[in-house]
Amino acid sequence: MSKAKFYHAGCPVCVTAEQEIISLIGTDNVEVVHLGEDKSRIGEAEKYGVKSVPALVAPSGNVLHINYGAGINDLK
Amino acid sequence: MSKAKFYHAGCPVCVTAEQEIISLIGTDNVEVVHLGEDKSRIGEAEKYGVKSVPALVAPSGNVLHINYGAGINDLK
Repeated sequence: MSKAKFYHAGCPVCVTAEQEIISLIGTDNVEVVHLGEDKSRIGEAEKYGVKSVPALVAPSGNVLHINYGAGINDLK
Repeated sequence: MSKAKFYHAGCPVCVTAEQEIISLIGTDNVEVVHLGEDKSRIGEAEKYGVKSVPALVAPSGNVLHINYGAGINDLK
């Protein structure tokens, strides 16, 4: 895979993330896939290891899940 | 803020995410901050809205939290 893939489902956090990812990586370097509109590609996303959306699959195959997780207070 | 900031705490998912982000955005376009080693910058991260790590703060100020969230099965 030579191009990053950004999987999302149209939720507000997805849209914000999509705009940022495109802005940072460049529109030519990432394919945007809306899994809510194109459910036939959910299986493809799963094969890459996507467990939630929005997620960015890097050209290396590593998956970055973009979301809100553990609290920063745990670091203190 | 003209440069993206990547906040992490040295956990395995952070390191993978860091490598991918640097590879995708370019090392000159992102400042990497290890909050586990430099706790004095936790307040700065919080001001940007960082709620978990790893997180990428885009030049626009939007925060992308990179993590595992809701399951993809919820989309089906």
